[in-house]
Amino acid sequence: MSVPVAIRVIGIGPGGPGHVTFAAAEAMAGVDAFLFLDKGSAKHSLLDARREILDRYAPQGYRMIEIADPPRDRDPDDYATEVRRWHGARASVVERVLLEEVGAGGVAAFLVWGDPALYDSTLRIVEDITGRGVLAPEVTVLPGVTSISALTAAHRIPLNRIGEPIHITTGRLLADTPAGADTNQVVMLDSYLAFRETADPDDHIWWGAYVGTPDEILISGRVADVADRIAETRAKARESTGWLMDVYLLRKESRFAG
Amino acid sequence: MSVPVAIRVIGIGPGGPGHVTFAAAEAMAGVDAFLFLDKGSAKHSLLDARREILDRYAPQGYRMIEIADPPRDRDPDDYATEVRRWHGARASVVERVLLEEVGAGGVAAFLVWGDPALYDSTLRIVEDITGRGVLAPEVTVLPGVTSISALTAAHRIPLNRIGEPIHITTGRLLADTPAGADTNQVVMLDSYLAFRETADPDDHIWWGAYVGTPDEILISGRVADVADRIAETRAKARESTGWLMDVYLLRKESRFAG
Repeated sequence: MSVPVAIRVIGIGPGGPGHVTFAAAEAMAGVDAFLFLDKGSAKHSLLDARREILDRYAPQGYRMIEIADPPRDRDPDDYATEVRRWHGARASVVERVLLEEVGAGGVAAFLVWGDPALYDSTLRIVEDITGRGVLAPEVTVLPGVTSISALTAAHRIPLNRIGEPIHITTGRLLADTPAGADTNQVVMLDSYLAFRETADPDDHIWWGAYVGTPDEILISGRVADVADRIAETRAKARESTGWLMDVYLLRKESRFAG
Repeated sequence: MSVPVAIRVIGIGPGGPGHVTFAAAEAMAGVDAFLFLDKGSAKHSLLDARREILDRYAPQGYRMIEIADPPRDRDPDDYATEVRRWHGARASVVERVLLEEVGAGGVAAFLVWGDPALYDSTLRIVEDITGRGVLAPEVTVLPGVTSISALTAAHRIPLNRIGEPIHITTGRLLADTPAGADTNQVVMLDSYLAFRETADPDDHIWWGAYVGTPDEILISGRVADVADRIAETRAKARESTGWLMDVYLLRKESRFAG
């Protein structure tokens, strides 16, 4: 018999408590334990930000369980295989915590930055756990504001010009975007600012770090004019805070200009 | 001298009041007038949904101004040109309301479904007004939960498999997505269910109407298995409510399957 457990995967938006939705805040009530995968000391300020959100929206008190993240090869020969292996290892440790610390009939929750559907592994971990069959999770997902929406709101721009498509990709895959899909590209998880290799000098970029938080940094302009400034700003910010979350929109000025 | 006016463009999420963020609710306070572009009688339930949100988050009372939407050619020879002409006409009527009904130093707000950056024209109207120079708007944008996030949350799925890119497009442009960009496609504004022309039978679709509201309808499965059911469900829903908002995710099963 599988052990029944409720799991709430709660999108909390890109940063500040203001981006939390009312439904997400409601879902923080009645949770037996909030689970956090600890990504090491560099991310302590991220943990603090989540505590601030829980202090505000779960004032009745809450229990947080930090789970040590299994080690991961950041430069594997086969990226997808290594990520899958790592997700399996994470599923094992989360499953054990759910069994031992939450238990049958309990309610666990994950607070996910931004929206749980976008480049976040929580739903995959939960799916892995369900597949093992030891637990029978009843899963609820609360959508959140993405860092993409926070970026465009801060710059006060739409994601696209009239009717144009939008391509969301990662720094790793940016060079692989087919021509014709690269009119508006949102790039996430890009530690190396890959646009410096792929963009035309006349492309326009809207970049933001810590978007939606009081530490927000915004730079926009022609790629040729602002690329160096973005790289310098990014390096300085990372050094002073010990971590960085950034995202950017890259637009071809040559297309659909009409 | 341009007339100074504050304009708040407030994303309110895909439907229910629960998807509103705390920051968006705060931004509804101190607004002199909420402006709504009236899209005709079929959309009255959309207006009611906004009233429900204002009743909850602006309990001190509020003023709503409905603005008659200028007529639009829905089947023009040149889509982008006609949309631009129509936006210009909208900018004129909104400018007049801002001047006559809100005035210098006043605060106006637009409540936008989902997020203001994604296939919504409010920011373009505001940009057009700014460009005219009669008014000097000070613009604030509040990001909102997109219908895409509500769709994936309802289906409890991520938007992509590990590391894959995501392409957001419209029914009109779906057939133009280049090979290699079509692994995960989110399709919006698709009255004709264009996937029936473009998708492979084995592609997977996750479809939703009125996502994030009590009327939510969800269908998912192999395209060959569920396409007819989606079309029938969509037609019935549209007939019974008089309007429809839907969105879907289309995924190639053949790629990145590993």
